[in-house]
Amino acid sequence: MQDAANKDELSFARESRLAMRRGEWTGVTQFRGKDQVLANLVVISKELAYDFVVYCQRNPKPCPVIEILEPSDPEPRYSAPGADLRTDLASYRVFRNGHFEADVREIGDLWREDSVAFLIGSSLSFDNALARAGVPYSPDVWVLNSSIPTRPSGKFSGNMVVTMRWMSAEQAVIATQLTARYYNNHGAPVHIGDPAAIGADMANPIVGAPVEMIPEGVVPVFWACGVTPQVTLLEAKPDLLITHTPAHPFMCDLKVDRICLP
Amino acid sequence: MQDAANKDELSFARESRLAMRRGEWTGVTQFRGKDQVLANLVVISKELAYDFVVYCQRNPKPCPVIEILEPSDPEPRYSAPGADLRTDLASYRVFRNGHFEADVREIGDLWREDSVAFLIGSSLSFDNALARAGVPYSPDVWVLNSSIPTRPSGKFSGNMVVTMRWMSAEQAVIATQLTARYYNNHGAPVHIGDPAAIGADMANPIVGAPVEMIPEGVVPVFWACGVTPQVTLLEAKPDLLITHTPAHPFMCDLKVDRICLP
Repeated sequence: MQDAANKDELSFARESRLAMRRGEWTGVTQFRGKDQVLANLVVISKELAYDFVVYCQRNPKPCPVIEILEPSDPEPRYSAPGADLRTDLASYRVFRNGHFEADVREIGDLWREDSVAFLIGSSLSFDNALARAGVPYSPDVWVLNSSIPTRPSGKFSGNMVVTMRWMSAEQAVIATQLTARYYNNHGAPVHIGDPAAIGADMANPIVGAPVEMIPEGVVPVFWACGVTPQVTLLEAKPDLLITHTPAHPFMCDLKVDRICLP
Repeated sequence: MQDAANKDELSFARESRLAMRRGEWTGVTQFRGKDQVLANLVVISKELAYDFVVYCQRNPKPCPVIEILEPSDPEPRYSAPGADLRTDLASYRVFRNGHFEADVREIGDLWREDSVAFLIGSSLSFDNALARAGVPYSPDVWVLNSSIPTRPSGKFSGNMVVTMRWMSAEQAVIATQLTARYYNNHGAPVHIGDPAAIGADMANPIVGAPVEMIPEGVVPVFWACGVTPQVTLLEAKPDLLITHTPAHPFMCDLKVDRICLP
């Protein structure tokens, strides 16, 4: 039974990727594949890869690395054998010299001999675990700049971008315990409570509506956010940077509740 | 009180390192600093560092990276600010072209502009946690070759080296749960039970007396071992490789029960 279930789930992930490859699925990936790891994509040149991997090692909460591919190799042999990172996401975002250029359907023509792809864990992977434990998914997730410095590496540095969810105190305790298990997906919160204590500017969120006042009876809970490495990379102005388009992460074969077991 | 306790512990780690720096402590570090992280040292050239850090990312159980230092920098700014990795271990082991050359007291004369130091988690850090939970430290720890392949990176590849402890079934369950928390220190076991299932050759251990037969009533439990990256590095025959001498790891300021919280 277990084998059959796994086969069905693997088929689901593979078929989802093939539908994206064929252009049959161009919508968001965010809510597909509840049990599979949804990973952020970063493609940079080999020249930048050492400093970036060291940056990720120094900042595992915002930058939890799931897989680093060999230069020029588009197949994530660990996360999704047989997949092709040039075609198997629904949408890619292309940046040149630190500026947005376009969202594109596939990146075969941008792939180089020295392209190195990184798959990085996303908080999307723990949202379902929270829901199963009675902390329902809320569309009210803010993305905010903070004043928490990251540990620099080479030309990569900057402050951490965080997500904020607000919830009851009881839910905050549950969410802290539960997300702590998902160390490949940003892990435990970086802060609970007063946004000002970590320099989170609620009046100017990156994503979400400005907040004038925290409502009575809720606790703001902050996690490290996968936008951090993207901002850090852009500030280094690489000639070419490719990422997934927001809400269009890569769907791995890996299971969320398996990769969190060290 | 908490601050005072931390200060005393930090002083203990610093004073231990200074005693080693001055040559006043040349014995094993293994049983000093029960609460501090004891880390394995690897020093290689920058040229090898990218493939090695990717190897560690691909094999986090045998190669859990605690800190990667900047090229030529001997100060572990994260693990032990103010320390000097050229002098602050009690004993270093020097290998040239893949062969043992000497154990030495300090490595200032071997340090180069392109030297990159890695501090890697050690199972020594969870031995005390096991003891606190009723699984007493046993001197009977075997180090064994296995047939479990590691995921290669560049010229680095090979099978995993494992440690084996044998214990009661109840202790094996406790040890599995507890070591799972220490994901920077090899994490949960890689295997429980029949040594032959992972190709562990009990008749020819790397460390420990040959075992003809597993005694009645004990369960062999196997963990990934920090000897793995050392063997892997030696097989790549770098012109110079420096590590700690066995049982002489580096004592960090970091606390074992803190760094395991993701």
